[in-house]
Amino acid sequence: MGTARVVFDRWDWAYAERMASVRSSAVRDLFGAATRPDVISFAGGMPDVTKVPAEAVARAAREALRESAATALQYGSSEGRPGLRRIFVELMAESGIRAKPDDVVVTAGAQQALDLVGKAFLDPGDVVITEGPTYLGALQAFSAYRPRIVCIPMDDDGMRVDLLEAELERLGLRGAKFIYTIPNFQNPAGVTLSPERRRRLVELARQYEVPIVEDDPYGRLRFEGGHCKPLKALDDDVIYLGTLSKIFAPGLRLGWVCAPRPILQKVLLVKQAADLCGSEFSQAVAERYFTGTRWRRVLKDLTQAYAERRDAMLAALAEHLPPEVRYTRPQGGFFVWVELPAFIDTKPLLAEAVERGVAYVPGDAFYPDGRGRNCMRLAFCFAEPEQIEEGVRRLAEVFEDRLELYRAFADAGLAV
Amino acid sequence: MGTARVVFDRWDWAYAERMASVRSSAVRDLFGAATRPDVISFAGGMPDVTKVPAEAVARAAREALRESAATALQYGSSEGRPGLRRIFVELMAESGIRAKPDDVVVTAGAQQALDLVGKAFLDPGDVVITEGPTYLGALQAFSAYRPRIVCIPMDDDGMRVDLLEAELERLGLRGAKFIYTIPNFQNPAGVTLSPERRRRLVELARQYEVPIVEDDPYGRLRFEGGHCKPLKALDDDVIYLGTLSKIFAPGLRLGWVCAPRPILQKVLLVKQAADLCGSEFSQAVAERYFTGTRWRRVLKDLTQAYAERRDAMLAALAEHLPPEVRYTRPQGGFFVWVELPAFIDTKPLLAEAVERGVAYVPGDAFYPDGRGRNCMRLAFCFAEPEQIEEGVRRLAEVFEDRLELYRAFADAGLAV
Repeated sequence: MGTARVVFDRWDWAYAERMASVRSSAVRDLFGAATRPDVISFAGGMPDVTKVPAEAVARAAREALRESAATALQYGSSEGRPGLRRIFVELMAESGIRAKPDDVVVTAGAQQALDLVGKAFLDPGDVVITEGPTYLGALQAFSAYRPRIVCIPMDDDGMRVDLLEAELERLGLRGAKFIYTIPNFQNPAGVTLSPERRRRLVELARQYEVPIVEDDPYGRLRFEGGHCKPLKALDDDVIYLGTLSKIFAPGLRLGWVCAPRPILQKVLLVKQAADLCGSEFSQAVAERYFTGTRWRRVLKDLTQAYAERRDAMLAALAEHLPPEVRYTRPQGGFFVWVELPAFIDTKPLLAEAVERGVAYVPGDAFYPDGRGRNCMRLAFCFAEPEQIEEGVRRLAEVFEDRLELYRAFADAGLAV
Repeated sequence: MGTARVVFDRWDWAYAERMASVRSSAVRDLFGAATRPDVISFAGGMPDVTKVPAEAVARAAREALRESAATALQYGSSEGRPGLRRIFVELMAESGIRAKPDDVVVTAGAQQALDLVGKAFLDPGDVVITEGPTYLGALQAFSAYRPRIVCIPMDDDGMRVDLLEAELERLGLRGAKFIYTIPNFQNPAGVTLSPERRRRLVELARQYEVPIVEDDPYGRLRFEGGHCKPLKALDDDVIYLGTLSKIFAPGLRLGWVCAPRPILQKVLLVKQAADLCGSEFSQAVAERYFTGTRWRRVLKDLTQAYAERRDAMLAALAEHLPPEVRYTRPQGGFFVWVELPAFIDTKPLLAEAVERGVAYVPGDAFYPDGRGRNCMRLAFCFAEPEQIEEGVRRLAEVFEDRLELYRAFADAGLAV
């Protein structure tokens, strides 16, 4: 379908205005290429589910259906299963967040939570503040509600809160509907917000009365360095989004929102309108998985594997890419952000890269406004270390010609 | 959470304007009361999942995880699993619809399809035409996009297409974004659109260039009478919504949209923004259920059980309710629509009914504008025949006092 060409669409008159701003996901569209066996994919942020013991999940399903088929196969409450919400509360407690099951609504992955938050808060023209670059699924979800998205640059310590402050000052009190942030191992930049900046961020949000939406899919996938408290642990007003996609499996589509009750009631209303309730079946299976299996062991193995892949990628980048290329050094998560010299546009080069057997996501997918063209996101989560080495080698070949041109210009003292 | 009272909401300034028109589901809010063991519930349209063999589902899950864990636990395509889309195509073929898997997008129940269609088509103030009364989940889904909803009355043959024609004439060419209809065993009215009116409906939609959204959750649950071809079988431009909730289990949240390709592409875009993709796990399990089990046998048993419950309800209504009360006689599905004399308001009486151990959904939940106050929807799908008899008896008691008053007035020749 992604390739179907529509010559004439006679329903064109009928679509909502928002359809002009809803865009397709670069990552989704890459799925076809990324699953070709000869292509080493650094594109999608797909967790390595082969490390999740399928028989343990099958056992969880059998037990869920033996003990509670009448609820697991039925419609459920829009909030989600109480047992699973308790598990989410325990998971959050381990990273320093104090919450009750009634503070939580189960969602279809964190992606649905982004959509519901956007739906509850955004009118056309409203301002949303995000990191720049930011998660493209968030841009997709929010863009359907037609906000103006303002991106705050990052450095190695995450969002530049000094620049955020300047922006908030410009916008004035309640000048934005919310600040969307991924503090841990940011998608796509891979950087982590420092503890000092976390404190400053919640202060600023309070001062300017702008809610914070904290998206934390990778927080438990830390390879090194100390745990940083979530923003939600610093300020109970934060809207916190969690997911099982990276610590268990995305195929069950389970995430959650933890937010102040008034906000949660709005989220619940739009959740009812969106799908009535989540999958009781998925929820019942996840409940058993997190109570009856050695899931911490699995998560430890997963984190170990991702750490090795990160190492392989950083080593390969250091070996194969020339010094003009800059990239981040993530302490966890899935992604490295690569910045090439400004004159290189990663988007038209993607076809060539796929031709050579390697895929990535061009950087402009992570900006609302066309920035990031000389950047790309590399996901190290899915490929094995040897593949990663080979993939980066292929990638270097793709950029080599362009870089030589760049060097020739630079040597001649010419700006490009 | 439904009962939590929010005295002061300091985020009130921040919510989107649409939140003023998004309403809570009367049925969702009733879930608490409806699950009290002493209450016989005619409220929620919950299928009787106890007739679905849990061990067959567990086997389907085990096989799905044994044969395809790498996909079942992973993110999937936004369109949904090809194998499941083929099954949906076969299901549709059995009722006369010709389609290909590429004409189908898998959704989280038909409810998500309603939300996605609303999102793709509706700007504030746009007109949507529905039957009156109509499915409250559709009202919820659409209302988030702030359309003006115009209800066309029904009789025993379904939507009054003569009144529809008058309305379309008033609105003019392309005067509405779509016509939403449930032709089979309508929710909540229980009536079925006649074959003649189906033909006329698609003619009118073509003439006025208004797309049709056909919602068909109950089409396969026919107790008697001949099969009526879906609108989609009469006109390929129809947007058809299907679901596994009533022929398998709602707990997996699986439904689908079958629509012309250009429309499907728009649905796919908003689907990506809403949740990236559906649950591969649920889809893989459903795939096995529909290929490896005797699901037709289960569906036959289910339909048989619902037919007996319909009979029990119609018999009890005839016995216990006085002649002033009118009700529909469905040939399939889940619901009977009851109309009481105009001066009775079923909403304030609900608390009393629950007190006496019976629950229903007040009629105004099925209108966008407060109509239907003297009506109620009775779902016969969930209770056993003996319970249904007892439930209707209790219901009759609740209304008896009011009806006596009514009779006294009527006898005295006074209007009420």
